[in-house]
Amino acid sequence: MTSSRGDDMYAWIRDLMPLNRSITGDGVRQTLRYLQDRLPDLEIYEVPSGTPAFDWVVPDEWNVREAYLEDETGHRFADFSRHNLHLVGYSEPVDQWLTLEELQPHLYSLADKPDAIPYVTSYYQRGWGFCLSHAERQKMKPGRYRAYIDATLKPGHLTYGDVVIAGESNREVLLSTYMCHPSMANNELSGPAVVTALGRWLQEADRKFTYRLVFVPETIGSITYLSRNLEIMKTNTVAGFQVTCVGDDRAYSYLESRLGNTYADRILRHVLHHHAGAYDSYDFTNRGSDERQYCSPGVDLPVATFCRSKFGTYPEYHTSLDDLSVVSAEGLQGAFDVLKQCIEAIEVNARYQATIPCEPRFGKHGLYPNVDTVGSGIDIRPLRDLYAYSDGDHDVLDIAERMGRPISDYFAVLNSLLNVGLIKPCVG
Amino acid sequence: MTSSRGDDMYAWIRDLMPLNRSITGDGVRQTLRYLQDRLPDLEIYEVPSGTPAFDWVVPDEWNVREAYLEDETGHRFADFSRHNLHLVGYSEPVDQWLTLEELQPHLYSLADKPDAIPYVTSYYQRGWGFCLSHAERQKMKPGRYRAYIDATLKPGHLTYGDVVIAGESNREVLLSTYMCHPSMANNELSGPAVVTALGRWLQEADRKFTYRLVFVPETIGSITYLSRNLEIMKTNTVAGFQVTCVGDDRAYSYLESRLGNTYADRILRHVLHHHAGAYDSYDFTNRGSDERQYCSPGVDLPVATFCRSKFGTYPEYHTSLDDLSVVSAEGLQGAFDVLKQCIEAIEVNARYQATIPCEPRFGKHGLYPNVDTVGSGIDIRPLRDLYAYSDGDHDVLDIAERMGRPISDYFAVLNSLLNVGLIKPCVG
Amino acid sequence: MTSSRGDDMYAWIRDLMPLNRSITGDGVRQTLRYLQDRLPDLEIYEVPSGTPAFDWVVPDEWNVREAYLEDETGHRFADFSRHNLHLVGYSEPVDQWLTLEELQPHLYSLADKPDAIPYVTSYYQRGWGFCLSHAERQKMKPGRYRAYIDATLKPGHLTYGDVVIAGESNREVLLSTYMCHPSMANNELSGPAVVTALGRWLQEADRKFTYRLVFVPETIGSITYLSRNLEIMKTNTVAGFQVTCVGDDRAYSYLESRLGNTYADRILRHVLHHHAGAYDSYDFTNRGSDERQYCSPGVDLPVATFCRSKFGTYPEYHTSLDDLSVVSAEGLQGAFDVLKQCIEAIEVNARYQATIPCEPRFGKHGLYPNVDTVGSGIDIRPLRDLYAYSDGDHDVLDIAERMGRPISDYFAVLNSLLNVGLIKPCVG
Repeated sequence: MTSSRGDDMYAWIRDLMPLNRSITGDGVRQTLRYLQDRLPDLEIYEVPSGTPAFDWVVPDEWNVREAYLEDETGHRFADFSRHNLHLVGYSEPVDQWLTLEELQPHLYSLADKPDAIPYVTSYYQRGWGFCLSHAERQKMKPGRYRAYIDATLKPGHLTYGDVVIAGESNREVLLSTYMCHPSMANNELSGPAVVTALGRWLQEADRKFTYRLVFVPETIGSITYLSRNLEIMKTNTVAGFQVTCVGDDRAYSYLESRLGNTYADRILRHVLHHHAGAYDSYDFTNRGSDERQYCSPGVDLPVATFCRSKFGTYPEYHTSLDDLSVVSAEGLQGAFDVLKQCIEAIEVNARYQATIPCEPRFGKHGLYPNVDTVGSGIDIRPLRDLYAYSDGDHDVLDIAERMGRPISDYFAVLNSLLNVGLIKPCVG
Repeated sequence: MTSSRGDDMYAWIRDLMPLNRSITGDGVRQTLRYLQDRLPDLEIYEVPSGTPAFDWVVPDEWNVREAYLEDETGHRFADFSRHNLHLVGYSEPVDQWLTLEELQPHLYSLADKPDAIPYVTSYYQRGWGFCLSHAERQKMKPGRYRAYIDATLKPGHLTYGDVVIAGESNREVLLSTYMCHPSMANNELSGPAVVTALGRWLQEADRKFTYRLVFVPETIGSITYLSRNLEIMKTNTVAGFQVTCVGDDRAYSYLESRLGNTYADRILRHVLHHHAGAYDSYDFTNRGSDERQYCSPGVDLPVATFCRSKFGTYPEYHTSLDDLSVVSAEGLQGAFDVLKQCIEAIEVNARYQATIPCEPRFGKHGLYPNVDTVGSGIDIRPLRDLYAYSDGDHDVLDIAERMGRPISDYFAVLNSLLNVGLIKPCVG
Repeated sequence: MTSSRGDDMYAWIRDLMPLNRSITGDGVRQTLRYLQDRLPDLEIYEVPSGTPAFDWVVPDEWNVREAYLEDETGHRFADFSRHNLHLVGYSEPVDQWLTLEELQPHLYSLADKPDAIPYVTSYYQRGWGFCLSHAERQKMKPGRYRAYIDATLKPGHLTYGDVVIAGESNREVLLSTYMCHPSMANNELSGPAVVTALGRWLQEADRKFTYRLVFVPETIGSITYLSRNLEIMKTNTVAGFQVTCVGDDRAYSYLESRLGNTYADRILRHVLHHHAGAYDSYDFTNRGSDERQYCSPGVDLPVATFCRSKFGTYPEYHTSLDDLSVVSAEGLQGAFDVLKQCIEAIEVNARYQATIPCEPRFGKHGLYPNVDTVGSGIDIRPLRDLYAYSDGDHDVLDIAERMGRPISDYFAVLNSLLNVGLIKPCVG
């Protein structure tokens, strides 16, 4: 059964599929405006080309009107109007006749996936190229071809969005995703869809923490974002999640932070263990998305990466096969649920201190049955364990992990103990 | 072959079996006086009902003269005079005729152990009840029964005992046991017997440390005891052992402290490993005795629990089957030996510092043979290892554990090295 | 194929085999002079008998001219002129006729190795004895024998050598070996040969660190050496290696320092893992050479022991079978290579700090290809990993270990990153 939330996310992905996203350009802009319609507090920023961002510079903006190869009979190949993956990202404008032989160095296809158009970009080396299915490529006979790219690559802006949803505290949780990939569904319209859905839910929820939702083009976008927000993020961030490839339903995946020991790692491992049972775990050598920036030395935010099937591991990855059939409402909903549980865990988790020595007489406080017989006392295990380890050193997550239970098993008894004053939060 | 010490302990248990112990009352008082005859320095304390003890209050005192069920022919069932487990602990006085149907909610038996009288108490919820073997219960025919309980439940005292056996230092080792269970042998006359025997031995032994032996009713007794002695115990206690179910010979068991990392845990694990070879190890989720209080946050004493067959794990547990056939002189002696070895280890263990750089010329000090041939040097391993690791950081227990030997292997060479001045104790 | 360096080392061992080394005497002196010819900066020291060294005293000097057993027909047994192992080390002079029965307590042979002359010494208990093959011993018929030892055991000197090869820093790496064993090849002419070869190489190499090469008689020599150099060594030594039994080719062995956690342990384990694949690892209970002094409490230098086949583990050990057939140019070369790699690792290893937040645009610095396609980025893994973990906490060895690669994989990229200023060394 699909939830309505999963259906919403799937519908957004379907709507956004045709746009030609890249690290800059109108496809990004239109994508952000579409999400802004669903998350009105989303702010959209424009950063001029040439702006420095640490070791990088915001590149020229790229926009495409038309692109194709045409043979002398007027038959078109790799037509951008059919699929925007046909054009190598950041191709320069060109209008030129070449022999097939001259054209070959500009063509990309995958012999082992003959029906897939590969995804290729050349952001920082000027040039042009076309991607096409190996099947289509093999239909190109020797002869002359017109390579036609009507595109602009010139000073403009890099566009990104964020929304900061304030809570009681200025301590922040980061959710970051990217939207620089053209028509591909799991990688990467699933991330923006799930983060947008989380934003809608968060705006309605009670919040101790502040939530920073970041929608950027990958790499240059997160670097630019960090160059403008690093200090506040380093000061305030308690945990962050890089959200990518979260739309299929074949796996749950966790890619650890640089050292694998941040609060985000602890939370995500815990939730995945109890939500998903088995999940795929990757160390930081498998990094590939914006965790490369968030976890870099000098930035070093507590960020773990969450995926369903991790980028690079599923057969449709970085090709036109990563289409609407790869993602599903159920897959998106599962990802949403994991991150929602991470947030709920973060909201509740803290260190508490018991207020009196020895076990309380729980019954006196209305928390405990009274007749002692063999076998009694089973049900009140979370109550007794939470109390027994509320020593000011262990947080609720530690206790849940020690007991092998999900932290959510302790939410109700935590409230009960707080209400009757048997525990109190630790400060600092 | 049984030792005379094991025989003594067994005889004490046999003598004490008939008394009707509970958390208060004359059964406890008589039990303590009996132990006092064997351990004259044992002090007996009386705490008035109504006295607060942290979250608890000392309850009314309970004493029973007579209790039974009687049918219209005068046939008695569940007669307290036959076995004091027949009466639910803390039953109120009653004299009332009921139909069998009306009586049923007041009856307790175990269908899966038809010959066992279960052990049931209702300390903090007023009421009454009878326990009987399932076999006896099935003989009760429909009809009217007189429930007769001639008992008093009224303000009086909670009774407990302790003895503090002073040593050179005021740093303390705690041995705690309980004696609130009616006629059951392993749980819990074995604990008081073994702790009393240890007290008798300790009074004769050289003692660096002070020993605090505590005999209390379980839970309310240890809470009351802690409410009166917490500060001195927190200041002085270096290690403590909860001693319970130490009379059978089917297993050795260790139940770790709250975090499993106290000095008592280290000592007990070490001794059990070398004394018992295989032993059963339980984490703190299996707690159930006074370690619940000693290890509670706010108390947090370094206390590990030692059992032969752990409470709750053996078939006779908390029934009339836990009788004199369950315990044995050998079983009690084994428990005594383990705790004696723990004490001997604590007495000797410390950090030492070598007094000169490089290996000493042990031979010069009369500690070493002189001809070097292949294979020599085997016997002097403890000597050389103790010296090599006497670096002020590792205590003798660390060294023994590193070498996989019992700490007692180092007692003699420790003395030798101290005598010739090659090592010196570390202060602080 | 043998290297010329391996051949050199083998030739030195062959030359030095006939000398009668002991903990003092001309055999040691001549051995050091031979090595000095190959390593001219080697300094030779003479310490008078009677000089105190911590718990020890430098013993009298021992020199032998002639020694043998002779029967009444003039047939000689255990003739020192045939093999210097025939005489128990530190035998007193004697000239005496005894019956075979009277002689037996002075004879040493190995029944299970009938052709081997055992190695026996009696440094600190005055006496005399002869070692011989069991085969030869069985030829001695009942009768009278002349025991003849023309030796001097009188005040003289203990002789040792060292060379300190200065580097940019006064922080030191220690290489220690011993040369107190008479005619045996693996134990112990291999150690002096390999350390001498390393000294020759080090004198030509760029050196950040200072290298202290120590050639001492075992035990009393290292104790004497430490008694004269302890302060400077404790202040400056970053890592040290005890080098012994490094001439055969049957194994690589590592014997850990006292706690197994020094920098020398880390380096040696790393190099052995990548150089040798499988290697034999021994804990400190298997100690037996000068690591006993270097790792003693009060000295506690960061010293690990490196062997090919560890002392005590190979069948020829401490007998005349440990001859030139046991060692080989290849075996010596392998040991040299391991220690050379340890030194190279120490020279390069340090903590570095990335100079800018986020990943650099490696391409801009000439360090990175530009076209992003599936599968690219594999070759630049060491570059990206070294940068990603240059956080000031992890040294290059940590990073290499985390990545499961030899540290040498990072030497080139480390230079590249330093050259373009993307990382900088951490101070302190």
